[in-house]
Amino acid sequence: MTPELTATAVPQATRLARLHRYWLAANYLGAAQLYLRDNFLLERPLQAADIKPRLLGHWGTQPGLNLVYAHLNRLVQDTEASVLLVTGPGHGAPAILANLFLEGTLGEVDPQFSLSRTGLEQLIRQFSWPGGLPAHLGPGTPGQIQEGGELGHCLAHAYGAALDNPDLIVACVVGDGEAETGPLAAAWHSNRYLNPATSGAVLPILHVNGYKLSGPSIFGRMSDDELRHLFTGYGYQVRFVSGSEPHQVHAAMWQALDWAHTEIRRIQEHARLGLLDGVPAWPMLILQTPKGWTCPLAVDGQAVENTARAHQLPVADPAGRPIQLPILERWLRCYRPQDLCRPLTGALCEELLSGCPTGEHRLGRNPHANGGQLLVPLRLPNLCDYGAMVSAPGGATAAATHKLATFLRDVFRRNEDARNFRVVCPDETTASRLLPLFEATQRAWLGPLHETDEDLAPEGRVMEMLSEQTCQGWLEGYLLTGRHGVFCCCESFMPLVDSMLNHHAKWLETSKNLSWRQSVASFNYLLTSHVWRPDHHGHAHQVPSFLSAVAAKKSSVARVYLPPDANCLLAVMDSCLRSRDAINLVVTSQASQPQWLGIEAAREHCKRGISAWHWAGNESSSDSHPHPDLVLAGAGDVPTQEIIAAAALLRQHLPSLRLRVVNVMDLLALMAPDTNPPGLSEAAFLGLFSADAPVIFAFHGYPLLIHELLHHRPAPARFHVHGYLEESQATTPFDMLVLNNMSRYQLVMAALDRIEPQPNSPALAQFCQLKLTEHAAYIREHGIDMPEVRSE
Amino acid sequence: MTPELTATAVPQATRLARLHRYWLAANYLGAAQLYLRDNFLLERPLQAADIKPRLLGHWGTQPGLNLVYAHLNRLVQDTEASVLLVTGPGHGAPAILANLFLEGTLGEVDPQFSLSRTGLEQLIRQFSWPGGLPAHLGPGTPGQIQEGGELGHCLAHAYGAALDNPDLIVACVVGDGEAETGPLAAAWHSNRYLNPATSGAVLPILHVNGYKLSGPSIFGRMSDDELRHLFTGYGYQVRFVSGSEPHQVHAAMWQALDWAHTEIRRIQEHARLGLLDGVPAWPMLILQTPKGWTCPLAVDGQAVENTARAHQLPVADPAGRPIQLPILERWLRCYRPQDLCRPLTGALCEELLSGCPTGEHRLGRNPHANGGQLLVPLRLPNLCDYGAMVSAPGGATAAATHKLATFLRDVFRRNEDARNFRVVCPDETTASRLLPLFEATQRAWLGPLHETDEDLAPEGRVMEMLSEQTCQGWLEGYLLTGRHGVFCCCESFMPLVDSMLNHHAKWLETSKNLSWRQSVASFNYLLTSHVWRPDHHGHAHQVPSFLSAVAAKKSSVARVYLPPDANCLLAVMDSCLRSRDAINLVVTSQASQPQWLGIEAAREHCKRGISAWHWAGNESSSDSHPHPDLVLAGAGDVPTQEIIAAAALLRQHLPSLRLRVVNVMDLLALMAPDTNPPGLSEAAFLGLFSADAPVIFAFHGYPLLIHELLHHRPAPARFHVHGYLEESQATTPFDMLVLNNMSRYQLVMAALDRIEPQPNSPALAQFCQLKLTEHAAYIREHGIDMPEVRSE
Repeated sequence: MTPELTATAVPQATRLARLHRYWLAANYLGAAQLYLRDNFLLERPLQAADIKPRLLGHWGTQPGLNLVYAHLNRLVQDTEASVLLVTGPGHGAPAILANLFLEGTLGEVDPQFSLSRTGLEQLIRQFSWPGGLPAHLGPGTPGQIQEGGELGHCLAHAYGAALDNPDLIVACVVGDGEAETGPLAAAWHSNRYLNPATSGAVLPILHVNGYKLSGPSIFGRMSDDELRHLFTGYGYQVRFVSGSEPHQVHAAMWQALDWAHTEIRRIQEHARLGLLDGVPAWPMLILQTPKGWTCPLAVDGQAVENTARAHQLPVADPAGRPIQLPILERWLRCYRPQDLCRPLTGALCEELLSGCPTGEHRLGRNPHANGGQLLVPLRLPNLCDYGAMVSAPGGATAAATHKLATFLRDVFRRNEDARNFRVVCPDETTASRLLPLFEATQRAWLGPLHETDEDLAPEGRVMEMLSEQTCQGWLEGYLLTGRHGVFCCCESFMPLVDSMLNHHAKWLETSKNLSWRQSVASFNYLLTSHVWRPDHHGHAHQVPSFLSAVAAKKSSVARVYLPPDANCLLAVMDSCLRSRDAINLVVTSQASQPQWLGIEAAREHCKRGISAWHWAGNESSSDSHPHPDLVLAGAGDVPTQEIIAAAALLRQHLPSLRLRVVNVMDLLALMAPDTNPPGLSEAAFLGLFSADAPVIFAFHGYPLLIHELLHHRPAPARFHVHGYLEESQATTPFDMLVLNNMSRYQLVMAALDRIEPQPNSPALAQFCQLKLTEHAAYIREHGIDMPEVRSE
Repeated sequence: MTPELTATAVPQATRLARLHRYWLAANYLGAAQLYLRDNFLLERPLQAADIKPRLLGHWGTQPGLNLVYAHLNRLVQDTEASVLLVTGPGHGAPAILANLFLEGTLGEVDPQFSLSRTGLEQLIRQFSWPGGLPAHLGPGTPGQIQEGGELGHCLAHAYGAALDNPDLIVACVVGDGEAETGPLAAAWHSNRYLNPATSGAVLPILHVNGYKLSGPSIFGRMSDDELRHLFTGYGYQVRFVSGSEPHQVHAAMWQALDWAHTEIRRIQEHARLGLLDGVPAWPMLILQTPKGWTCPLAVDGQAVENTARAHQLPVADPAGRPIQLPILERWLRCYRPQDLCRPLTGALCEELLSGCPTGEHRLGRNPHANGGQLLVPLRLPNLCDYGAMVSAPGGATAAATHKLATFLRDVFRRNEDARNFRVVCPDETTASRLLPLFEATQRAWLGPLHETDEDLAPEGRVMEMLSEQTCQGWLEGYLLTGRHGVFCCCESFMPLVDSMLNHHAKWLETSKNLSWRQSVASFNYLLTSHVWRPDHHGHAHQVPSFLSAVAAKKSSVARVYLPPDANCLLAVMDSCLRSRDAINLVVTSQASQPQWLGIEAAREHCKRGISAWHWAGNESSSDSHPHPDLVLAGAGDVPTQEIIAAAALLRQHLPSLRLRVVNVMDLLALMAPDTNPPGLSEAAFLGLFSADAPVIFAFHGYPLLIHELLHHRPAPARFHVHGYLEESQATTPFDMLVLNNMSRYQLVMAALDRIEPQPNSPALAQFCQLKLTEHAAYIREHGIDMPEVRSE
């Protein structure tokens, strides 16, 4: 008999009574963490000196979280289910920490919190203490895949975790405040993408305690009818667990979880017999309990329990206001702290812990929460089989994303058995020319099918929901539970996830310093339809700011790649799919473009990050200019085209100019290694850009970003950066370059301004000016670019 | 009889027939814009040469938009209602442009599109033509308050527009693709904040045509039951208008709009009699018509109408593929282009236009859509009545936001009659110490009330929903329709609206170049709980990146203010509330902090943007150092405190050092005026920072931003910037500064590294090092900062 089954041999009434005592103990530990720096078990009367000098933390959500935790423990004991808990209200950290302490998993990652009286005292004291336990859940908390900072992302994370984990149940507590956020409101639709035959289940528990920090929540004042309608509309089966009398709520919660578990298994069995029929009506719970449940009803004549005043500290100043100290003491004693430890030995009461599962059944040790330990590297196909043939630089054209899609198609194929790779995408696979993916898989889709539908199937591994935030949340959840993926999106819409990017980067950074957190696969962004190819769209679709946002991470977690052609894109993505613990941003156009490097050269370029392209200037690789007169540098596919065209004009008109062309593919390699570890060494940097030659730099994004990156480099003022200046209108691709002063002709003119005058300089400047005038007239008349500058 | 009422005297059957013909005409004009560069009325057989060389635009949503437009016109004729149309699917621009052309409003803002045959030809030709009409709706389109770029924001915009406009009906078309986004999903809850007694109405029209770009939409495959449940749960009364047979849909739409209008007026009358009881069940329509309705059923053997293939160009390449040309011609001719103009005169058929309202009743001329023309400046109270008394710099403490709230409270009071000022806030008024607001107004709240509730009322002007995106959308809608407001938020959550910020900035920039768009009030952000005062929160709440995002706008539309104390905050906000067409970001702590300037000095500082604070260094205002040895500069309230403390240490220990202290309140004034018009002149810059003195700069945000801003300034390498380095843990406020190398002691040590060695330098360095060691020990022991560095 497993320990779990032994526990269940006890009569239910006894187990319910124990569960209630466990709940009281967890409530005590949660409240004590907020307040006490001493007298941890209230073995003597509470004094002002026992109170922490700075009170920081939240009570309001804790009793509900403790209730959920205790009852999930019970469910696990009865079913041996693998349960991962995702906690939306992560500011309820003391509650989760209390449970992790009691089940022993907190002590396993940090022995100062071992299952002992000392550990218990440390838990209470170290919470929100300098150098101690943070007031929000985060990577340092075992069992978590969710930062307790920004609200609204738990449900998408939960669904991401459940994908392709058929035995996993992800319980997801959603706060009623956070339910008001957009990301959360959208994520309810994730049920339409989760295949019960091959994935696990998400059990949403909407915790309606009625109040946010400042006032009532919307969901707290919706009628039960409205709530039932809303979630029935979303496609769920709703069950309410409501009340303020603990024993009645315990009984209801016990039954509700049994019901939910049975429903989940019924849906899964049905689907696994091949009987799936549309979107299953998954169970969800709506838990309605008072805000700050069991705290003082009133303090100083003001109602506290069941009001917004219970959100943070129900008793606000027990050390400073003598009248509040006994109120706090009475409150804390109601949880019977004396029952926590045996008076003589100081050991924790075993009976209290009898409701906790054991080993990996404990929520704090669910293996999926430390997904790196489950990570299976992708089997990647051989790059060389996918490269575009390039007889000479510029001698071929290809659509980079289309090429990439054939590679990714085979990533799907080669990892079909492992079921550990997905592409998420807000409705862009067609526009981004990724259709070859659908030779190996489909779009995930459980809804009804029509006769004309294409590439839709419940087992599809491409997830297209028109919500960048849901896509981001899914992939974060998928990666943090040990799988791999790519997020494809339109460049201009990516700032919608700026905030989520910040949080994921912080998660990765913090995780690196935790020895017990294993490495996870990197988050790979593939952005297309970029600022220089907005096509159907206008000014509002020209937003290269996500690139700046990723570059601003500037730590070892972020990389930005601007592959100039299809082979470079392949080499970059191959490297991204092998990388760990990073955020990789790759920006490329979906349009057909000239190809510069063969696949081997692309691989080399990828390794170096920045290379001199001698063939584009007038040096040979064996005979490069020690002191070039001018360096032309490009970063980005479209800027590279213009730089190469500008170089050709200069070579033709000013043949004696010592000209070098440099291509920047790994943008952050520009940074000095003292501020960015993967930055080029100073010697390598000088080898490329020389010490003093003027550099005309054509850049995909906002020019000032390059100046920022070059800040610690020698003589940065000689870099003259052309990039996106927020200039646009309905116009042609080449005219977009002209408007932003980055066309080949303007780059040549900028170069002429920076070099020593040459005999042919004035003629060349005049030629370029003439070309610009010709071009302006041509597009007005014909509506398209002149053939010589046309890109597709 | 008004022209509207005359139109309604015609029998309904005739009007329906005319409406149908109008709809065909609008469909024709929409389709023709996508394809034709000539032969605009198909007066001769269609030839490949008639087709535009680059086909850019979207058909799928157009017939639905035209249907809505035509029927809203009918409703306006019958009711004389003031209707503003907000179009979520803004990529359906050709449809809206067709209607604007037919009603004459397009020609009124741009005479080349006047109501004539020539205007019609220009409309068709100029769409998506270089220099012509953009493919998405935007500020250049009359009648719009919504950029047709990023999806998901229309509903929040619509509610923002309806607030405090009791006579206005805002019809809001929501695409079924965009309905999947988070911002849209959250915005449905806006009904809980709109008071029918004093505000107008929003009529949501969810346009379910079943497909996004790449595949089916979620809403397109939900059953009618699910849809009804979902929106009943959100609190709406739902009515379906469904079909693919135009006459049947016309009849249903006519009735549905009559029903909706009657319901709106019934709810409003009820509320205006004082009988409001909770959240009214506003009507909404679900319009279910085929994607690309009326386009070819199939092309090249592939289904098109009612599939995702109808999203953009149903006939993809009529010029290049001869087989497609007759398909296109047949399609276009089904709309009877010959009926558009009279054959002899070429004038537009009057009967066709008889369904359009006249004057300001036309949707393209609704005055609220060009809100600047309705703008009433705020009556602002006298700043001096609100200032903190500051006898000497640092001689008083105050909580800046609390002071500001008393000022804003009186802004509410003084503008009570105008009803043109609101504060939006995602649940932060309490935490941000803005409670004085509730002496003048309440939180907007229509839901049920409990006995313990405080400061909630249907007429409340503070709108707290825990959705930054909804708050942003509301305020954008409110401002663009000619009112004023402030968005208060936690600094760390603001990146959630990065993308919306981008779009609003682009809207303002573009609008400035349109003579007919009147100036609107600026968008004012007040960010509190900032990176240096995260308190209850952890690493995830330390995100000063929104400051970088606003600074990156760098155009005349963005300003960033870092007021160092309460009086400066008052002066800045007073100036922000007077400004127009800008985005003003103000960052301040809600904590009690030392006060530096009296209110008059604060006003002066605000005017200058950057000032030398001679009293903090060792110069007098009459006798400032022409060549200081060192400049200490601070930007932000906490950095300023540290800079002043560092200056005091230097003055005390190194009295002969020529020391200047500079405070930077208007961050973008650092930029050279050639890149940023409001930047300080070079003379003023040199007057403050000298030409060559080392500058130790303590900054609120990421240090590299300062380097970016200083890029064009003389000798930028002498600026040594301290700021947020992403270092944090659970710790005290002062320790946060230490972790990020920005404490007073570290600033002094950095200064000692940059100046000529002085006799006392080693002793001072040692003193600082000692203090840091003392501090580390103290916080471990006591859990709070040493008294001498404690901030609150």
